[in-house]
Amino acid sequence: MRYELYYWPGIPGRGEFVRLALEEGGADYIDVGNDEEAGGMAALEAVLEGDGAHPPFALPALKAGSVLVAQVAAILQYLGPRLGLAARDPRAALWTHQLQLTVADAVTEAHDVHHPLGAGSWYREQKPEAARRAREFREQRIPKFLGYFEQVLARNPKGPRWLVGARVSYADLSLFQLVAGLRYAFPRTMAGVEDDLPRLRDLAARVAERPRTARYLASPRRLPFNENGIFRHYPELDG
Amino acid sequence: MRYELYYWPGIPGRGEFVRLALEEGGADYIDVGNDEEAGGMAALEAVLEGDGAHPPFALPALKAGSVLVAQVAAILQYLGPRLGLAARDPRAALWTHQLQLTVADAVTEAHDVHHPLGAGSWYREQKPEAARRAREFREQRIPKFLGYFEQVLARNPKGPRWLVGARVSYADLSLFQLVAGLRYAFPRTMAGVEDDLPRLRDLAARVAERPRTARYLASPRRLPFNENGIFRHYPELDG
Repeated sequence: MRYELYYWPGIPGRGEFVRLALEEGGADYIDVGNDEEAGGMAALEAVLEGDGAHPPFALPALKAGSVLVAQVAAILQYLGPRLGLAARDPRAALWTHQLQLTVADAVTEAHDVHHPLGAGSWYREQKPEAARRAREFREQRIPKFLGYFEQVLARNPKGPRWLVGARVSYADLSLFQLVAGLRYAFPRTMAGVEDDLPRLRDLAARVAERPRTARYLASPRRLPFNENGIFRHYPELDG
Repeated sequence: MRYELYYWPGIPGRGEFVRLALEEGGADYIDVGNDEEAGGMAALEAVLEGDGAHPPFALPALKAGSVLVAQVAAILQYLGPRLGLAARDPRAALWTHQLQLTVADAVTEAHDVHHPLGAGSWYREQKPEAARRAREFREQRIPKFLGYFEQVLARNPKGPRWLVGARVSYADLSLFQLVAGLRYAFPRTMAGVEDDLPRLRDLAARVAERPRTARYLASPRRLPFNENGIFRHYPELDG
């Protein structure tokens, strides 16, 4: 099975949560948006404007044979068991998915910090409002979200190596990406917050050291964070 | 099985998406937050501060025997097959879930309209910002989200009665609630938008007429929308 990932070129964005699973799972895939030979932007628009019965509302979307699925959490739920990145036990699989949805909520908030008035206008048009929202995000939301995941790790009956059970899952990969993005966007804030999150820090390091993921992170396929994406480093928002 | 729903009292909020499924599915359940005898607020706090292995990040949460699950979409994915509100076919079930996640995105945006600077300060402290965000929401986001669901209905190979296949699913119930909430919060906007969404209008009416749901909507268990919830009617935000 050759998977096709459809996501905007040039940014990690929400596509990165899918890329990390495909890479750690050793999947054969094409990153269509970043591959002109595979169709590039024109292929993305064709998927968004296609006339199939399961249209995506937005990207990322994944094609797997005749399956077209969008929404990061749904894509990962689909890929998880196929790539060995989700528990088979239904209760553990549901818990993995619940954690993924909470990562997704944190990602949405991380985006809205620099676009509190909506994605339809530029950051430069909403800088004072972003500064107000950023303060709450730094002081309350980052500690709340990351403190939650620290607690989840601490309570895992199989130990704090992974979020669910004794094996890596797509939720661990996504949490790694959330932490990486927050470190990029809010380095000062994170330097202060992470002291109290030893298990989370270890988890992020553990993900980055997995052989397949380490090779991916060192490759040109890993797109750097930048100021067109979800996680943006605007020093004025970092307190 | 007697389900226990844990959600803040006095508002429909995100708990309503779960209530609608429990009611349409004919489930035996307790709405703990609105039931002092069942524990009320103290029971909610006990669930949030409990020391179990699967702590909820936020409410709603659902207890089903020894299962505790949070995140609306995860709760509905759990309940769907148990209450006859989701397709058994895996591909159709995934599509149902994908649609639910898109409803959830719309709900988050509907909330953020009145709290663009974050939930940590009052609406009255962010009224000019809310007015700016509301304009984009009214003019771009509501038509985009609802137009998408209209298209999904139009493309359903089994006809436009329901979002997925030929039977009602939890995603239909949630879409009904999204439409109801938007009508409450943005009546002028919706009056203009709905003319172009005949299938969506019909779907919302069809959900409301289902016998169990109709009885629920007419009962005191159906909490009215109000200005403490997600969907708030502030006329100044309705253009």
